[in-house]
Amino acid sequence: IDFLIEIDKLKHIIRRNYLADGSRRENDAEHSWHLGMMVFILSEYFEGIDVLKTLKMVIMHDLVEIISGDVYCYDEKANEGKFEREQKAAEELFSILPEDQKKELYDLWMEFEERKTPEAVCAAILDRLQPLLLNYTSGGKSWLEHNIRVESVRARNDIVFEHADKRISEFVAKMIDDAKEKGYLK
Amino acid sequence: IDFLIEIDKLKHIIRRNYLADGSRRENDAEHSWHLGMMVFILSEYFEGIDVLKTLKMVIMHDLVEIISGDVYCYDEKANEGKFEREQKAAEELFSILPEDQKKELYDLWMEFEERKTPEAVCAAILDRLQPLLLNYTSGGKSWLEHNIRVESVRARNDIVFEHADKRISEFVAKMIDDAKEKGYLK
Repeated sequence: IDFLIEIDKLKHIIRRNYLADGSRRENDAEHSWHLGMMVFILSEYFEGIDVLKTLKMVIMHDLVEIISGDVYCYDEKANEGKFEREQKAAEELFSILPEDQKKELYDLWMEFEERKTPEAVCAAILDRLQPLLLNYTSGGKSWLEHNIRVESVRARNDIVFEHADKRISEFVAKMIDDAKEKGYLK
Repeated sequence: IDFLIEIDKLKHIIRRNYLADGSRRENDAEHSWHLGMMVFILSEYFEGIDVLKTLKMVIMHDLVEIISGDVYCYDEKANEGKFEREQKAAEELFSILPEDQKKELYDLWMEFEERKTPEAVCAAILDRLQPLLLNYTSGGKSWLEHNIRVESVRARNDIVFEHADKRISEFVAKMIDDAKEKGYLK
């Protein structure tokens, strides 16, 4: 119960991207819920994944940011030492839980970070696709605010182009091209 | 993809309860994410549930409110005809999806509403417990704003007292008693 009250703070961790209608920036809890719905709806595009494990992974993957904070993916400097800070945060936050659950959450978070299993690759792909959809739908509001270049977005979506089902990677490639054409990206 | 963009609107549906720190009211996407984490962490207290089905159910159960809006559980008048409005909303919203997924979401929502299966009972119990935790932690902010009486909260938690594991129902009973004593409830 203490842990469930503590994680309420995820609703205060604000991301860079806006909601689809551009009215305000999104928080981590909303982002994590949206990823959960994407696993639900798109799981058939990810062969061989354990859907329950993937769902658990996406709804918990950002919890460490309650302690370590959100770091903008296109801010190179802020990303230095990110993993070490998050690892300490994971140790601290999950220690509120009984030993077995502490281990389950820590291992699941580490698996997400290592991106080696089908579930972690799926979670990483959806973690790219979700803000892409919102950035595109909001007319590139967050990209324009930060002068993001199309090459950076393509590089950020590497894992999509390398590992996603062709129907998803082609959709993403098209969306990025279209964003450039519409002037949402430099 | 159209559906996944459409459901972004759940982040705009504002509930009556506040976040744990009382800083602002919660939205449906945050609430749904929190319920997902509660299924994750508390599933061992719910014997015989299919955890994946329960997780899917709690993250999607409020989607209909994108069309029908949130109705305060203690507002009797506003609750008249709620089910019929939500049923129409479910038909409309889930029609964006392919036929098989439309059916899966509609059936899952209906199962939640009917509260007959172990998964639906678990979802209903956690749907009571989550705002209770936030209302208590925020010092009864929303209860006091609406002059809510302790008897109403007890009645609202009927399903907890009747069907939850004793460790949960006793915890809830204590929390409600304590809220009354502290003056969070009339």
